[in-house]
Formats: sequence, C-alpha cells, structure tokens
Amino acid sequence: MLKCDLCGRRAVIYQRFANRHLCKRHFVEHFERRVKYAIKKFNMIEKGDKIAIALSGGKDSVTLTYVLHKLYGHRNDLEFVAITIDEGIEGYRPPTVKIAKKITKELGIEHHVVSFKDNFGMTLDEMVKIGEKKPCTYCGVFRKYLLNKTARELGCTKLATGHNLDDEVQTILLNFLQGDIARLARLIPQRVQEGLVMRIKPFREVYEKEVVVYGLLHGLPMDLNECPYSHFPVRDVVRDFIYNFEEKYPGRKFSIMRSFEALIPCLKQMFPQIELNKCERCGEPTPKKVCQACVLLEELRSKLGKTS
Amino acid sequence: MLKCDLCGRRAVIYQRFANRHLCKRHFVEHFERRVKYAIKKFNMIEKGDKIAIALSGGKDSVTLTYVLHKLYGHRNDLEFVAITIDEGIEGYRPPTVKIAKKITKELGIEHHVVSFKDNFGMTLDEMVKIGEKKPCTYCGVFRKYLLNKTARELGCTKLATGHNLDDEVQTILLNFLQGDIARLARLIPQRVQEGLVMRIKPFREVYEKEVVVYGLLHGLPMDLNECPYSHFPVRDVVRDFIYNFEEKYPGRKFSIMRSFEALIPCLKQMFPQIELNKCERCGEPTPKKVCQACVLLEELRSKLGKTS
Repeated sequence: MLKCDLCGRRAVIYQRFANRHLCKRHFVEHFERRVKYAIKKFNMIEKGDKIAIALSGGKDSVTLTYVLHKLYGHRNDLEFVAITIDEGIEGYRPPTVKIAKKITKELGIEHHVVSFKDNFGMTLDEMVKIGEKKPCTYCGVFRKYLLNKTARELGCTKLATGHNLDDEVQTILLNFLQGDIARLARLIPQRVQEGLVMRIKPFREVYEKEVVVYGLLHGLPMDLNECPYSHFPVRDVVRDFIYNFEEKYPGRKFSIMRSFEALIPCLKQMFPQIELNKCERCGEPTPKKVCQACVLLEELRSKLGKTS
Repeated sequence: MLKCDLCGRRAVIYQRFANRHLCKRHFVEHFERRVKYAIKKFNMIEKGDKIAIALSGGKDSVTLTYVLHKLYGHRNDLEFVAITIDEGIEGYRPPTVKIAKKITKELGIEHHVVSFKDNFGMTLDEMVKIGEKKPCTYCGVFRKYLLNKTARELGCTKLATGHNLDDEVQTILLNFLQGDIARLARLIPQRVQEGLVMRIKPFREVYEKEVVVYGLLHGLPMDLNECPYSHFPVRDVVRDFIYNFEEKYPGRKFSIMRSFEALIPCLKQMFPQIELNKCERCGEPTPKKVCQACVLLEELRSKLGKTS
C-alpha cells in the first residue's frame, strides 16, 4: 500500500510535480487550496458577485460546481447559478444534462438549461447537416453566445468555466507555436468588457487528472465520454507533447503557465481592450457590426431556405 | 527527376514550408535573400562595421563565413575577421580547426585561433577531468569569454555566430517551456552592452537543413561530427517535438520565431539592460563583481593544486 507522504495514511494520488503521494484528506486540502489561490490571485470572486457556472455536465464543470459550492456556498454575499447549454448532440448531450440537473438539485443551486433549438431554431446536429463549417465553429460561437447572454440576463457578474491547467497550457502553447500572440492575449484573465460577463477559470492551477480524482473521491456523477464532433488534430499533437514533456520533466505545465503569466502585463499593453459594439441585429456585444452568431445563423437559414 | 517549381530545372531541395522544389540557382537566391533580410531587419551589419565571425569549423559557421564574404566581402566600408576557439577536445576539434584555416585562407579572411590552453593553462579535456561541472558549462563560459575578448581586442564592432532558425527556435521554446522568461529575453537581437561586442545571427531566418544544402552545393568543407561532450537531454526532447510538429504543420518554426519577435518590445521593457561591471580580476564585462570565467578558473586551479 502506498502511503501519504504527509501522514502515512493510504495514498489516493501521486503528484508527480511534487514527487509525493497524498491521502484523500491531504489531497483534497491541497486541491482546494490551489483553487482558492487561483481565485484570489486574479480576484475571480469578489464581494457581491453573482456567479454563473457553465455546467456542461462533464467532469470538469461538475467538479467545479461542487467545489465552488463547498468553498463559497456559505457566503451570504455571493450567489451561484448554473447554466447548461444543450447544443442538441444526440446521444452525447442528454446524459450530461441529466447529470447537471442532478448535481444542481443535490447542491440546491438554481439551474437553467438553454438550448440551441429554442434559441436558434435548430440543434447542432441539424446545423452540421445544413452548414459547411466545422461543428466546433458553430458550437463554439453559439455556446459562448448563449452562456454570456443567459448569464448577463440573470444578472450575473462572473461566468465560471471548468478549464483546468492542462486545457489552459495547451491553448497557451498552441497559440505560441502558431505565432498567434493576439490569440494568446485573449487568455489574459479578468478583462472587463462592456456587455461581456467576465469569465473566470478557478481550475487554472489544478491538473486535469486531479480534477478527475477529486470528483471520483467525492462520488460526483461523471460522464467521461467525449463529444462525437471533437476533432482538434493540432491541439492533440500539442497535448501529447506536453504530456510526454511533463512525464519526463514534472511540473512543466506550471512552468508554461508561469511563462504566460509573466507576459500578461506586456500582452495587455500590446493588445489594449477594444470597445465592443452592440450587434445591429441582436444587440449582443461584438467587435464588428454584426456578431458572429448572427452571421452564422443567416448563412444556415439561407441554406435551409434553399434546401427546403 | 524533381523539377524546380520556378524554372523547371533539376531541383536540389524541397522547401516544405513553402511546398515547393527549387533548383540550385533559385534556392541559393532565396537563401541569400533571407540572410540579407534578417541582417537588414535587425541592422546586423552597418557602415564601418568590423565583423568577427565565430568560426568553429562546423557546417553552420563555415557556411556563414562563405555567405558573409560573398554578400558583403566587396564592401570597402566593412571588414571581416574570423576567430576560432580551440577548446582542446581531442579528436573532435583539430579537424575543424583545419577546416577553419582552409576556408579563411581560400577566402582571404584574417583568421585567429585562440586556445583554452594558452589562455587558461588547460584544455577543456583537462578541465573536465579536474572539475565537477558539466563540460558544456566550462565550454560555454570560456568560449564566449574568449570570443568576446578577442573580437573586442581586434577592434570588432560585431560578432557573428552561425545560429540558424532551428537553433534559435529550440532555445526560444525551451525557455518558454521552462518558464524562464528572463532567459528568453537574452535572445533579443542587437542589445548594446558596454564591453560586450554585439552578437549577430545572420542565419536566424534559414533552416538548418538549408544551411547544409547551401554548403554542400558550394562544395564547402564540412565536418558534421558532433562534439563528444554534447549532451542536452531537455533540448533534444524539444528539438524532436519541433521536428515532428514542423513535419505535420510546415512553417511552424517560422511561427515560433514570429511569436518571439512579437514579444521583443515587451521583453525589452520587462528586462531593461543591466549595467555591466568590469570583473575585479580580469577586467572583462560581468553583471557581478567577478566574472564567471574567473570563478570557474579559480575552482579548477584550486582542485589542480590539491591533486598535484
């Protein structure tokens, strides 16, 4: 039996980056401490905040909902609400919507399910059939659109997503490798923009593996299936490299994060925040005249008109 | 027979990043154009410069010597001189010193061979036997020391090294992955520092493979052996990743270089140049009181005193 390096109890995880085994109690303590550390570091949660949790029902967002409720649920000056976007992906989304309903009911968190079908007249599955763009293009644009709109309409001041250290570091490195510093700058935490609910990522300091272990240890319902449309070949190459690099040189995911964070002040200078307009059609914030959601929607509707 | 995409003559190289084959003439033209582009971009060569070429006798520095002579050798307002550091590595260095002598003689370039033995009283082979540090630590410190000192004493205003795109991109990514932004900043081209001859890297825009092909096409003497002390496990992992990434997504070495270049203004702000002192012992420039060469030398000499 492997023992906790701190207390000798049965270990539940080996933290390679720290070269130590931890028991359930010490792992949970350490995990929660790093979540709080990230939250404080970037002032993710402030007095009076109403926080919308982007709850897909996947492992990250379910664990995020649980942890935020555990660490901050007792505070009278904070409010939490969960939003689940139902893109309409047959076979994949329904079970996670169920999980989202279950966990929010258990924790007593207000829950809103918002669907592509209700808002755009078609599911993602239908969009993919009609349109020529990649599924992730439609999904990315419309999901973010609905998350932001719903959170804002509910009076939320923050929108929390389940992105973990692995996710963030992949995106950071990917943008760096692609020479896309502007996109790198979009990862700067906590930028205020009119009409956009500020996004926060409380899991940015914890490994994906730790999120899963934390969730399993707490018996959280977990759907580990992957979206059938998921297809990111470049990102997969980068992910595999980081995985191998971290295996050989533990802690490098943190190093990459530190590199990025060191650059934040100058990235802010290089890419000052642009004023957002209100979309001429739907009123949602956009750097252009018409927002990307309206552009895509028009394309899809015109194709639908032609085919039907 | 593969044909040049520009003129139909026999191709000598396939440029993956541009997805094209080139004949000797078009490849050479394109290669030289990119060397000149890099030189102009960073004002590497200016009127009145006396340029020391760090000529190890390896493929990069031999080709660099040839190219600089070809492109700028006719200019009356410029002077070139080559410096070869003989670290004293049995079996490895003597043949490259010969190559360096040969190429400089052929081109009519003044050539200086400067040895560890003459300057420090021992060869690198001897240092490695006596000392406890890695060979590359001794070599790196003492080689740079002698290159800079010799170039300055010869009245040189620039010191050109054969670092190619592959070398630079490896170092950039390595530092980024290690979270070492301060070291990343050291790669900023053309920083003026009192007592330090400004280093220039005219090959920063050409692939290693292209340097080799260029050298072979011109019948340049080429030693492709690797230093017996060469041992960079982390760098090798990074190099292999970049190689594979470039194979899948050609041109990404350029992208990484562009990412770095985009960050140069920030890095300059973050790491303003520090004033250098004169080493208390040898008078060479150093950020500390005593330079690293003098520190290492004292260590080695005290060990030598004990053992003999």
